[in-house]
Amino acid sequence: MSVTFAQGFSAAGVPAGISAVEGKKDLALVVNEGPLEAAAGVFTSNRFCAAPVQWSRRILADGKAKAVILNSGGANACTGEAGYAQTVATAETVAGLCGCAPEEVAVCSTGLIGELLPLDHVLDGAKAAHAALAATPQAGADASEAIMTTDTKPKRVELSGSTGWRLGGMVKGSGMIAPQLATMLSVITTDAVVTAGQLQAALTAGVETTFNRIDVDGCMSTNDTVILLASGASGVEPDHDEFNRLVREACASLARQIIGDGEGASHDIRIRVTGATSEEAALACGRAVAASNLLKCAISGNDPNWGRIVSSLGTVPEDIAPYRTQDVTVDVNGVRICEHGGAGRDRSEVDMTPREVHIDIDLNAGDAEATVWTDDLTHEYVHINADYES
Amino acid sequence: MSVTFAQGFSAAGVPAGISAVEGKKDLALVVNEGPLEAAAGVFTSNRFCAAPVQWSRRILADGKAKAVILNSGGANACTGEAGYAQTVATAETVAGLCGCAPEEVAVCSTGLIGELLPLDHVLDGAKAAHAALAATPQAGADASEAIMTTDTKPKRVELSGSTGWRLGGMVKGSGMIAPQLATMLSVITTDAVVTAGQLQAALTAGVETTFNRIDVDGCMSTNDTVILLASGASGVEPDHDEFNRLVREACASLARQIIGDGEGASHDIRIRVTGATSEEAALACGRAVAASNLLKCAISGNDPNWGRIVSSLGTVPEDIAPYRTQDVTVDVNGVRICEHGGAGRDRSEVDMTPREVHIDIDLNAGDAEATVWTDDLTHEYVHINADYES
Repeated sequence: MSVTFAQGFSAAGVPAGISAVEGKKDLALVVNEGPLEAAAGVFTSNRFCAAPVQWSRRILADGKAKAVILNSGGANACTGEAGYAQTVATAETVAGLCGCAPEEVAVCSTGLIGELLPLDHVLDGAKAAHAALAATPQAGADASEAIMTTDTKPKRVELSGSTGWRLGGMVKGSGMIAPQLATMLSVITTDAVVTAGQLQAALTAGVETTFNRIDVDGCMSTNDTVILLASGASGVEPDHDEFNRLVREACASLARQIIGDGEGASHDIRIRVTGATSEEAALACGRAVAASNLLKCAISGNDPNWGRIVSSLGTVPEDIAPYRTQDVTVDVNGVRICEHGGAGRDRSEVDMTPREVHIDIDLNAGDAEATVWTDDLTHEYVHINADYES
Repeated sequence: MSVTFAQGFSAAGVPAGISAVEGKKDLALVVNEGPLEAAAGVFTSNRFCAAPVQWSRRILADGKAKAVILNSGGANACTGEAGYAQTVATAETVAGLCGCAPEEVAVCSTGLIGELLPLDHVLDGAKAAHAALAATPQAGADASEAIMTTDTKPKRVELSGSTGWRLGGMVKGSGMIAPQLATMLSVITTDAVVTAGQLQAALTAGVETTFNRIDVDGCMSTNDTVILLASGASGVEPDHDEFNRLVREACASLARQIIGDGEGASHDIRIRVTGATSEEAALACGRAVAASNLLKCAISGNDPNWGRIVSSLGTVPEDIAPYRTQDVTVDVNGVRICEHGGAGRDRSEVDMTPREVHIDIDLNAGDAEATVWTDDLTHEYVHINADYES
């Protein structure tokens, strides 16, 4: 399913020998069969952005794309002109196969930073993927598997509009996940009849409150890309608001799946800040709490340590988030363990066994709110990132 | 030694039953025997600052202190009016013992946030500490042990001015260490004849490039305090520049010892950023790298992963630190593994066996530089903060 759920899209995922893992599917191709060819993209703000990001940002500027080729097994970041030439060669090969211009082919890569790709394998893989293209659920599933790196499961979404159009998507991402950017590689497809401008507006707005509000480890990737393609194959012009809502819902579902598969995580943590003077204030507070290694360790040890929550809140400058410390309350999984900025109910009352942990912070200073998601910090996270080269 | 190295200071460290660890020394007292009573302090900028921080900041505003009492085993943070009353009662008891006003007694606490102290134990301990006061090296050592929490070793410094005056100090700190503030509890003493204004200026400047540039885990404490006391007992007015230099040197030594004892750390990481357009730019880059969990895990696995260094650099906005990505070089332990923003020499050439790891980043954009210190992120850090209540 995933990207083939919407009409007008074919996909494939094949093993191309790019990944160090023998036989792993590591190359995905998504082709927009039309009649429309509208596209939108959101990219990392990292200044060391990868060659495929530089290319795709440029060619998507006109709101048009016929295909997206994605590889795991190598990020093609910090690879200079040689790396950029590899991206261009990849786009040219796909263009030849699809009968379009290279500037209609977006490219995404993920994996180790600083090394060139095995280009022969990528180009041979592109040919194999093109030969395998299908509009079937299996083909969509294969594509979503081919972009996985440290992910332990593929991440997909399928949504239906009320007037017969559809939206499908896939994402990869598990580590090097931080807010303030579009996170990791994602392709979302729709068969709705929409303009490129509508697509970009819906995607930018949708990403802002979803992909941009998750944080596995505070580390921003060089390769993050989210691409939204429209084929128009349903022949349906969707209701504008419903379209925006479903694009956001797809982004939210995929972002939530990233948190659910965060490297080494044993708890998914939802941090909701209410009673703020503005959304920005709520967001700054939520992000400060989500970034606390000490809190994330405590949660992995099933300790709802509110001292580590308020000490993180206390680092947000007053001009950014006005509130009085003595007005703050903190609930963890529904138990108010911090009241008036001090101890509330005993923290032994909190049931920490569920995978999902809800931290609700009320600043009691206004009416604005924001929600961010993060993971706990476990032995397994250190293991994955200390003992493996990734 | 430590705080008793300078003339005119007596100290003690006693077990008072505040810590959960049976028999642990957990209460320290430092008394300035004069003839001067000059004092300066630098405190956490955390808005949830502890009761002893609120008190000590207020009473040190006049540049005068006779004594400092410090306890481990409880932070007295987020404890409201009852916690503040405990701090005042502690200062009053010490004042009674020392024959001074409560406003001449600074108070410092460290330990778990959100719980009141066992006040009877604190006050009885104050009496025991006062009875044990001595100007001996052993008394200074006892005091430096009494302020330890997750620290595995006491941290002390002794320095001599060229004209017969001295400077001594102690610090505790191992976790919840982040830059942009005076970090953890520290008391530094001198027998030089200096004014309170000189003291505060020397301390503020000294802290800026030392305590404020270390980062164990990105987490800012509610209790951080550095206090500098002058007794004038040497009768020597020090050279102004030498005094400032030695205060900075004492801060640097104590800060370096915190990094050397960072929770669970197996590597101390020195990040030096050169070639920046301004010191602020260099500092922003250094801090971004020091905050990367991914890099810190890689270092704990002895992997000099330069991709994780440049991807962190890339998160610093261009208006804060102007540089061109293709001009950046990165050396780890003297091996240039990143050149022109891409791969340089093979990272297998880097010897990662030393405890100290040197990361030298040259932005090649200007003449300014800054150095920050951090620790690696290990299984043991997670263990300490997930499995223990601290």
